[in-house]
Amino acid sequence: MALRAALRNKCVLSGLLSQRSSSCSSHGRVCASPVLAAQRRNNSTSPKIDVEFDQSTGVAVMRLQSPPVNSLSLEFLTELCIGVEKLEMDKSCRGLIITSSQPKVFSAGLDITEMYGKSPERCGEFWRAVQEMWLKLYGSNMITIAAINGSSPAGGCLMSLTCDYRIMADNPRYSIGLNETQLGIVAPFWFMDTMKNTLGHRTTEVALQLGLLYNPSEALKIGLVDQLVPEDQILTTAKQTMTKWLAIPDHARAITKSMMRKPTIDKLASNRDADIKHFVNFITKDSIQKSLGMYMEMLKKRRG
Amino acid sequence: MALRAALRNKCVLSGLLSQRSSSCSSHGRVCASPVLAAQRRNNSTSPKIDVEFDQSTGVAVMRLQSPPVNSLSLEFLTELCIGVEKLEMDKSCRGLIITSSQPKVFSAGLDITEMYGKSPERCGEFWRAVQEMWLKLYGSNMITIAAINGSSPAGGCLMSLTCDYRIMADNPRYSIGLNETQLGIVAPFWFMDTMKNTLGHRTTEVALQLGLLYNPSEALKIGLVDQLVPEDQILTTAKQTMTKWLAIPDHARAITKSMMRKPTIDKLASNRDADIKHFVNFITKDSIQKSLGMYMEMLKKRRG
Amino acid sequence: MALRAALRNKCVLSGLLSQRSSSCSSHGRVCASPVLAAQRRNNSTSPKIDVEFDQSTGVAVMRLQSPPVNSLSLEFLTELCIGVEKLEMDKSCRGLIITSSQPKVFSAGLDITEMYGKSPERCGEFWRAVQEMWLKLYGSNMITIAAINGSSPAGGCLMSLTCDYRIMADNPRYSIGLNETQLGIVAPFWFMDTMKNTLGHRTTEVALQLGLLYNPSEALKIGLVDQLVPEDQILTTAKQTMTKWLAIPDHARAITKSMMRKPTIDKLASNRDADIKHFVNFITKDSIQKSLGMYMEMLKKRRG
Repeated sequence: MALRAALRNKCVLSGLLSQRSSSCSSHGRVCASPVLAAQRRNNSTSPKIDVEFDQSTGVAVMRLQSPPVNSLSLEFLTELCIGVEKLEMDKSCRGLIITSSQPKVFSAGLDITEMYGKSPERCGEFWRAVQEMWLKLYGSNMITIAAINGSSPAGGCLMSLTCDYRIMADNPRYSIGLNETQLGIVAPFWFMDTMKNTLGHRTTEVALQLGLLYNPSEALKIGLVDQLVPEDQILTTAKQTMTKWLAIPDHARAITKSMMRKPTIDKLASNRDADIKHFVNFITKDSIQKSLGMYMEMLKKRRG
Repeated sequence: MALRAALRNKCVLSGLLSQRSSSCSSHGRVCASPVLAAQRRNNSTSPKIDVEFDQSTGVAVMRLQSPPVNSLSLEFLTELCIGVEKLEMDKSCRGLIITSSQPKVFSAGLDITEMYGKSPERCGEFWRAVQEMWLKLYGSNMITIAAINGSSPAGGCLMSLTCDYRIMADNPRYSIGLNETQLGIVAPFWFMDTMKNTLGHRTTEVALQLGLLYNPSEALKIGLVDQLVPEDQILTTAKQTMTKWLAIPDHARAITKSMMRKPTIDKLASNRDADIKHFVNFITKDSIQKSLGMYMEMLKKRRG
Repeated sequence: MALRAALRNKCVLSGLLSQRSSSCSSHGRVCASPVLAAQRRNNSTSPKIDVEFDQSTGVAVMRLQSPPVNSLSLEFLTELCIGVEKLEMDKSCRGLIITSSQPKVFSAGLDITEMYGKSPERCGEFWRAVQEMWLKLYGSNMITIAAINGSSPAGGCLMSLTCDYRIMADNPRYSIGLNETQLGIVAPFWFMDTMKNTLGHRTTEVALQLGLLYNPSEALKIGLVDQLVPEDQILTTAKQTMTKWLAIPDHARAITKSMMRKPTIDKLASNRDADIKHFVNFITKDSIQKSLGMYMEMLKKRRG
């Protein structure tokens, strides 16, 4: 859940993400300057994703830069998905490092404002974008490394969990976890499956029931992250780790990855519409809308 | 397997447990004094289950008090299932702590006398009650904590494994595990699944093949229990832990729990009759009956 | 993948392994001297498997003795399968210890020469033998212990993983793992499943993507082996461990083992032909044949 109370300057996005994706595929190879491209596309606002692709190494660094806390709004998710898809289609791009440009936070998770006071259609469109983000990242053929340089609750944790490797800044103030139950909501089955694939059944059962947020040491201990480093070394370490993964022939590695993840991915891919319907029914309930409203009021007061 | 050689004063219980359960549901809310209620129900004998429900905290403590070793007899299981169902239906009851009133033992497991020299019908009724206990506890919407203040082999271990959290008394003389193979019998698939969900595939494979009983330190190390405390602090610790779990909104936590356990529960729920038939065929074999007879003789001599 | 560049004196083996297996079953009980039997069968060459069966303990020790590195050739696999099947059918044989007679290596894995420049029919026959080895060992009713007294990459690691218990010589020069991706190939789904059953999903995902080879300490830490001992104590330790496992009634232990492994075994058993077709299509590709050829040239030069 995002801590943001409002989205400012949001440009209108119409149509389904899948339509955007298919039109996007005509772009072909990623352009030399995806940052500029993104700026051109959303000319009413600054891009929420910065992609720096190093042709010499075949590695892209994607920086989440949506102030203040990289909330996963529909706009943010759309930019992210387009960015990932373009890199995916660029055969010269073999690895992707995801990190944050915002201080102290990797991503605060789903943007609450996308779920409050919105039409069912709009809620459905938002949820499809969340699904798309997960499908694209968890199913990526690229080597994906999360350089988690800040807190990463809920949807932020999910995004990290899709990656092949997780390096976290060793700052005890940061935390990571799927804390949905603490807010009275339930992590969907594919959040659950992703965590189970990482931590096993038992640890996931406790983590999800209690909505636990772990500090970096705890996260390392249970396997929620793979490595801790001082914050100023996180990108260097991510790049060094990437080098190790790049030594493996892409084709064999990508098939192996796909075989491991396919059953989990197929489960959502073949149930997307039902999952969206389920989400929309839940989130548009009066009781849930009321809870969200109160939560947002509380956040406003805390800041005001 | 229970160490008891005989059940004394057993009152005749007729009909299937499921019938009892459905008639029980007309009771509605749990009564103020379930202990008295249980005494009324089994007026020929003292209740085998003591339930103390604290309205102010929403937490019930269920004490197993069937001397000498809390064997899981049909009568015991029936009382236990009725007790759990009544608490389950009482919306004010949010958490359940299960512990033992007997010294040195949590529960010795299934009562052998229920399986020796009994008619197939009676064996089937018994097995349905074992299933029912597991279905009710593993599928409970309440927060369930096992305060394991004594040894907990076989069925006793299974009962612990159904809970959300396991605290064990740190006494090296106590042990816990599914030790069925040591007695020449096989843990059914749902015992296996429950252990796999807790320990993972590999540890379960070794634990079940060798019928391993673990002391508390070993049990903690492999994750068979979650925490060790001195025996005199076990109930206090269970209540403190419960407080932590109670801080999570019930609805979200219970749905999460159910999503995690549903596939495992469905597997038995949709195969109950076949599983009963399988058990009855196995247990009524001459060779198995002979083994059970010898085992019971051995126990008698050991005591005599 | 085997390090051997060529198979010398290979006798022609016709027919499918499954045919051989079924004719073999007429042998009934294992003969007193399986070593001699093996020699009679392959009289043009020395046996690649030495089986020493101790009637007094019910334990057989199978030594892999195919110089230089126990490559899994069709001939080797056929001998191994026949040896295992004969022991399996001998009710007096309860346990099997597998170890190597070759210095420094347990088994180097699949024999590359079986996959290079061979007809599709022959490749298919080879792959069926690899499947058969796995099906026989992973599905064995005997207690199986791997005494890993040397390196054990790829197919050698798979063979170890089929066993109930793995003891490895504590020599940091030895390594074990499924390193297929390092050679540009992909571990089939049943290699993957076997490793997942041992290490869990997450560790397997990393191990297989990177094709990691672990030294003994690392292997112990992640659970790829169960115990490390000095190399000269490996067989003694394996026999002591076997004694512990023999204390459990065979019938109950074997049913338990079978229940744990059945879903994994059924998955291959019901997809054998498709899996063979998939392998043959892959391995006979020009690009793969070219890679294998270059790899073998490299090995020749390294030795020459």
